[in-house]
Amino acid sequence: FIIESLRGVEPADISVVLEELDGEDSKYILMLLDHDVAGEILAQLDEDVMLPFVAEFSPKELAPIVQDMQSDDAVDLLLEISNHMRDEVIAHINDKEAQMNILDLLRYDEDTAGGLMAKELIKANYKWDIVRTIEEIRRQAEDVEKIYSVYVVDDFDRLLGRVSLKEMILAKDHTKVGDIFEQEVNTISTDSSQEEVAEIMQRYDLEALPVVNARGRLVGRITIDDVVDVITEAAEDERNLMAGISEDVEEDDTIWKLSRSRLPWLIIGMGGGMLAAKFIASFEDDLAIIPVLAAFIPLITATGGNVGLQSSSLVVQSLANPLAIRESLAVRLLKVFGVALLNGLVLNLIVFGINMAMGQSMALSLVVAIALYTVVMLSSILGTMTPWVLDKMGVNPAMASGPFITIANDLLGLTVYFTVAHLLLL
Amino acid sequence: FIIESLRGVEPADISVVLEELDGEDSKYILMLLDHDVAGEILAQLDEDVMLPFVAEFSPKELAPIVQDMQSDDAVDLLLEISNHMRDEVIAHINDKEAQMNILDLLRYDEDTAGGLMAKELIKANYKWDIVRTIEEIRRQAEDVEKIYSVYVVDDFDRLLGRVSLKEMILAKDHTKVGDIFEQEVNTISTDSSQEEVAEIMQRYDLEALPVVNARGRLVGRITIDDVVDVITEAAEDERNLMAGISEDVEEDDTIWKLSRSRLPWLIIGMGGGMLAAKFIASFEDDLAIIPVLAAFIPLITATGGNVGLQSSSLVVQSLANPLAIRESLAVRLLKVFGVALLNGLVLNLIVFGINMAMGQSMALSLVVAIALYTVVMLSSILGTMTPWVLDKMGVNPAMASGPFITIANDLLGLTVYFTVAHLLLL
Ligand SMILES: [Mg+2]
Ligand SMILES: [Mg+2]
Ligand SMILES: [Mg+2]
Ligand SMILES: [Mg+2]
Ligand SMILES: [Mg+2]
Ligand SMILES: [Mg+2]
Ligand SMILES: [Mg+2]
Ligand SMILES: [Mg+2]
Ligand SMILES: [Mg+2]
Ligand SMILES: [Mg+2]
Ligand SMILES: [Mg+2]
Ligand SMILES: [Mg+2]
Ligand SMILES: [Mg+2]
Repeated sequence: FIIESLRGVEPADISVVLEELDGEDSKYILMLLDHDVAGEILAQLDEDVMLPFVAEFSPKELAPIVQDMQSDDAVDLLLEISNHMRDEVIAHINDKEAQMNILDLLRYDEDTAGGLMAKELIKANYKWDIVRTIEEIRRQAEDVEKIYSVYVVDDFDRLLGRVSLKEMILAKDHTKVGDIFEQEVNTISTDSSQEEVAEIMQRYDLEALPVVNARGRLVGRITIDDVVDVITEAAEDERNLMAGISEDVEEDDTIWKLSRSRLPWLIIGMGGGMLAAKFIASFEDDLAIIPVLAAFIPLITATGGNVGLQSSSLVVQSLANPLAIRESLAVRLLKVFGVALLNGLVLNLIVFGINMAMGQSMALSLVVAIALYTVVMLSSILGTMTPWVLDKMGVNPAMASGPFITIANDLLGLTVYFTVAHLLLL
Repeated sequence: FIIESLRGVEPADISVVLEELDGEDSKYILMLLDHDVAGEILAQLDEDVMLPFVAEFSPKELAPIVQDMQSDDAVDLLLEISNHMRDEVIAHINDKEAQMNILDLLRYDEDTAGGLMAKELIKANYKWDIVRTIEEIRRQAEDVEKIYSVYVVDDFDRLLGRVSLKEMILAKDHTKVGDIFEQEVNTISTDSSQEEVAEIMQRYDLEALPVVNARGRLVGRITIDDVVDVITEAAEDERNLMAGISEDVEEDDTIWKLSRSRLPWLIIGMGGGMLAAKFIASFEDDLAIIPVLAAFIPLITATGGNVGLQSSSLVVQSLANPLAIRESLAVRLLKVFGVALLNGLVLNLIVFGINMAMGQSMALSLVVAIALYTVVMLSSILGTMTPWVLDKMGVNPAMASGPFITIANDLLGLTVYFTVAHLLLL
């Protein structure tokens, strides 16, 4: 009955339903289905629920399902489980080709082209004719779900070019693929970053990108559906980092998980706030003489925060598009100064004007103006450098657009403001 | 010579180079190229440089290029120019079919499935056989660059299903498409939002999605390359909104443009800071008696800002995934309260503990604790409601994760803090 009612339902929809069930019930349903459908469902599961699902299976039960999955999805699943279980599952795979494919893909770093590619693709020797190539397609029809292009290789498996399926259909039966293939084909090497993959596929509107190794041999193929997932996940990670959320959560997660995902940055922010409190308290005497000094604290910290965020966000954007044409570092830094000088001037004219109009003392108005200008300059530089330094350290630079930069800028702004005030007013 | 050196270069790469040239030089190069290559180059241009480019052309010069573009790209270009020029260009298009396609697509809202689709696709009547269908592909080969699937329609152009190119190749010549087509095909209606398009294509790993009108007639097709652009642009818009940048800028834009893109939110933030200053100044007497009150201002505003940002970001995420399974509004609000209660408790234990340890007075420690708890609660609610309200108003809800929520939370936090302090301490 369950099988009956699931017939015709897309695997992607079944996996959404299974995510709401517990591991045992899910396993029961998956075992009722064909191995290849079960594999597709597992491939569509959210990474963070994969482990409890798979934990219900013995290696012997999991192996035939993994064997029927697309090689890239099989490896993604195997990377979620323990080393021990992984080896056992692989040992239980009967299909030698599937086993080899998996072992090959396990060698690549997850964030590289090698980690994104699948082994499934159609290749044809340049000496073959269309009939022979179609035979090859027929032979592989079940393994390679989406074909898009036939890749043309020489006797050493080196990629020469491609023939699109459309050209295949329009060509005569005895044409040699070597005579009709397109030579100018975008390729990528196994160790390129996934950002480069995404940028190339987006720029040239590709649905598939062949991956070659250092010797030019065709070793795999990346399809756009997986790159769309990469782009979406990168955007979500960035939003979470910018918002100070430290786990991949959704609104329908538990209160406990939601709370846990937020506490780390709140506590760090709290630490920053306590440091700020200690710092301000050390100016208690100044504040006792001029209590209105306190009034401009939020103005200074908020402006520093906004300027820092704007600066860091622009650098994060540049770092996310590694292939875009860029200016030299010197020009970029000069522009950071230029923009900060210009914006600082506009802001100061406004604030100084309002302060004088409101009857604030000349001295205090000047203190605020000088502190504000300094904060705009320093926050711009801090906001520009931080993502760049984080990127060099191998940390996601979007981290610099989150609470991190806010805390740093609050402390920076307060230091500048109270130092200027102390020097000029007292 | 220029033509020689551009042969073999991808249109996408040429357009990157042209973006650096002025309109006149670009026009000179575009006029040297074939119309369809020139069209592809124009289609790849950044939206914000389209206008100066196209302004150099007369309608008569532009028409043959537009005529050879894919219909979706042609319409995107025409939407960038004046109504008058648009009508003239369309009138100068000789190919009646291209003209009709453009007029049809102009009717749809840019943010809908209708605004994303192109008219180019291959369709076959269910009574046709493979040979006849291949003839149709041959006839349309030049117009439809990427085919992916042949859509199967009835005599009234209603979509019945699809045959993938792979199945076309494997089928016998005299098989009827009506006998082999796949019936369960994802479709979308012209007025669906582009977010829905993106979510469906991503969930089901589609490279193309047929678009039907209210009567089930096949009216166009959306390809994944355009959806990738939509996803990337949405992510970039969101980053800009969160960072308080009000234009689509990159690091290589001019200082003037960079400055202009940042000033609006800085000035608004400045306004918020001045309001805060006025508000705090009204507590000058309290501050004169207990100057250390000022010390906790950054702690309160920063925590309110962080909590508000975390809350709003989660709601923005939910709004961006309209099809995901969601809980009822009541459950979601209850969870917001739950998380705020829990996190507020943890933060307060930490801050109260540190304050007592640092020898702060019991009274002040209590004031800070009560204000902090209240701010965590109120900022959570504000952060949750704002994106939701903005979305209802037709504004991009990510706006709520930007400086907007920071300013609101600063003012909210200060009000709570000084009110509590005034009531309890004085
Ligand atoms: Mg992988
Ligand atoms: Mg593209
Ligand atoms: Mg895949
Ligand atoms: Mg996938
Ligand atoms: Mg997620
Ligand atoms: Mg989750
Ligand atoms: Mg702040
Ligand atoms: Mg459009
Ligand atoms: Mg997908
Ligand atoms: Mg298109
Ligand atoms: Mg496009
Ligand atoms: Mg842009
Ligand atoms: Mg630009």
